[in-house]
Amino acid sequence: MKRSERLIAMTNYLIEHPQQLVSLPFFTESYQSAKSSISEDLGIINDMFQKEGIGRLQTVPGAAGGVKYIPANSDERSESFADELANQLEDPERLLPGGYLFMSDLLGDPQTVRNIGRLFATHFANHSIDVIMTVATKGIPLAYAVASFLNVPVVIVRRDPKVTEGSTVSINYVSGSSRKIQTMVLPKRSLKQGANVCIIDDFMKAGGTINGMRSLLDEFEANVAGIGVLAEAEDEEEDRVVEEYVSLLQINNVDIKNKKIEVHRGNMFSK
Amino acid sequence: MKRSERLIAMTNYLIEHPQQLVSLPFFTESYQSAKSSISEDLGIINDMFQKEGIGRLQTVPGAAGGVKYIPANSDERSESFADELANQLEDPERLLPGGYLFMSDLLGDPQTVRNIGRLFATHFANHSIDVIMTVATKGIPLAYAVASFLNVPVVIVRRDPKVTEGSTVSINYVSGSSRKIQTMVLPKRSLKQGANVCIIDDFMKAGGTINGMRSLLDEFEANVAGIGVLAEAEDEEEDRVVEEYVSLLQINNVDIKNKKIEVHRGNMFSK
Repeated sequence: MKRSERLIAMTNYLIEHPQQLVSLPFFTESYQSAKSSISEDLGIINDMFQKEGIGRLQTVPGAAGGVKYIPANSDERSESFADELANQLEDPERLLPGGYLFMSDLLGDPQTVRNIGRLFATHFANHSIDVIMTVATKGIPLAYAVASFLNVPVVIVRRDPKVTEGSTVSINYVSGSSRKIQTMVLPKRSLKQGANVCIIDDFMKAGGTINGMRSLLDEFEANVAGIGVLAEAEDEEEDRVVEEYVSLLQINNVDIKNKKIEVHRGNMFSK
Repeated sequence: MKRSERLIAMTNYLIEHPQQLVSLPFFTESYQSAKSSISEDLGIINDMFQKEGIGRLQTVPGAAGGVKYIPANSDERSESFADELANQLEDPERLLPGGYLFMSDLLGDPQTVRNIGRLFATHFANHSIDVIMTVATKGIPLAYAVASFLNVPVVIVRRDPKVTEGSTVSINYVSGSSRKIQTMVLPKRSLKQGANVCIIDDFMKAGGTINGMRSLLDEFEANVAGIGVLAEAEDEEEDRVVEEYVSLLQINNVDIKNKKIEVHRGNMFSK
């Protein structure tokens, strides 16, 4: 196979298999090419991925080694994406009762969701994450987007058990802002003891829901390896029950009376 | 920029922007290359995408023209993926009360979900779809996977309204198998009149839920442009209230007593 063809096929393969170790023999056999050619191709791809700001190739030496595509946004790409998103969210038409923001249109766009996922995956790339966890419903697309770049499975916490999930573990927790007692369930088969779990959600006010997920992880004897939220309501900072988290956006000064709202980059960018 | 570098950058760009018309000037400016070189590159990429069985490039001529990546599985890839999935689902450990199957582990794997999405997107590529619709919770990841390859937004039907979605339209419907009356809601802002909607869900027994979504679409004066389900319970065929649909898998002969189950390719492969 010609180099030009190989570069296309290998680029596609690596992009579709992020964070997966691919052995060199896999490429030499798939494309009927010498090891030296494949190595040279990988060098070109690595340079180009970095130039484009989409990540890099990691080489693992030795007999069991190979190459792994680590998706990672350049800072420039991350910042300009966050600013663009913030800008879209500042539209006063989005204001809903209770200081919530209508975000379903943005969260309904697969390209936007994928970009958000890439950003969190960049942040959590070195956190040795085994599983992404989220709570139904809005966090689900974000969780899958992050998971697809980290190459780990997703588990979904629900408010009520469903027959299609088999036996479940449930906990009660106090919602941070409304102070109501709520329930969360997770299928028994979904988490292994000692798993490193990254919690992803779309919105955090006081953080009660995320705290609930933390209690649920305790039941499974699993660890919180990271917490990422798309948007945090900054005005709620005083009552916050969750401390260690990263946010992509911060929503400040929600002024329902004058229909004004400010959205800034989240704490992910100051860390 | 050298051809080898350009091919990598363009392959990445096209894969990340499926079903989007990209003008030639965008490429010539991004990569500082002549139009003739870019055209030649696109020819090589098109050939290679087809050889790899992942889709093709469509050229749109004229001043407003350009090139569009149409993701599409080769039949061979689709069939072998469906068979592999069927094989995994035939594990008797998956049997749950009521003839349901535990699928959360498979639906929790982003790579599997993405492959399912690619398969439906291949099937619906020529159906002029504007929106993908699904119902919370399990259909969500599948809906996003399909939508990402078709480059259209997703709207999510819920069982109960949520403050973060603004005002909603709700309907009551009769669940096909349990004959219970249930409710479905969709935010008012989520669908335009006349939109062509593709319904995606994970599992269909009698089809009551999908029928409910159809009634909801009537309320919005939107059209059903397609229905896709990951797995259908074939034994329920007699009671089925939905006719025009494609399934990726069919579940037959669920024998709870002897812990046996058969899973075959769905009707997508016989159409």
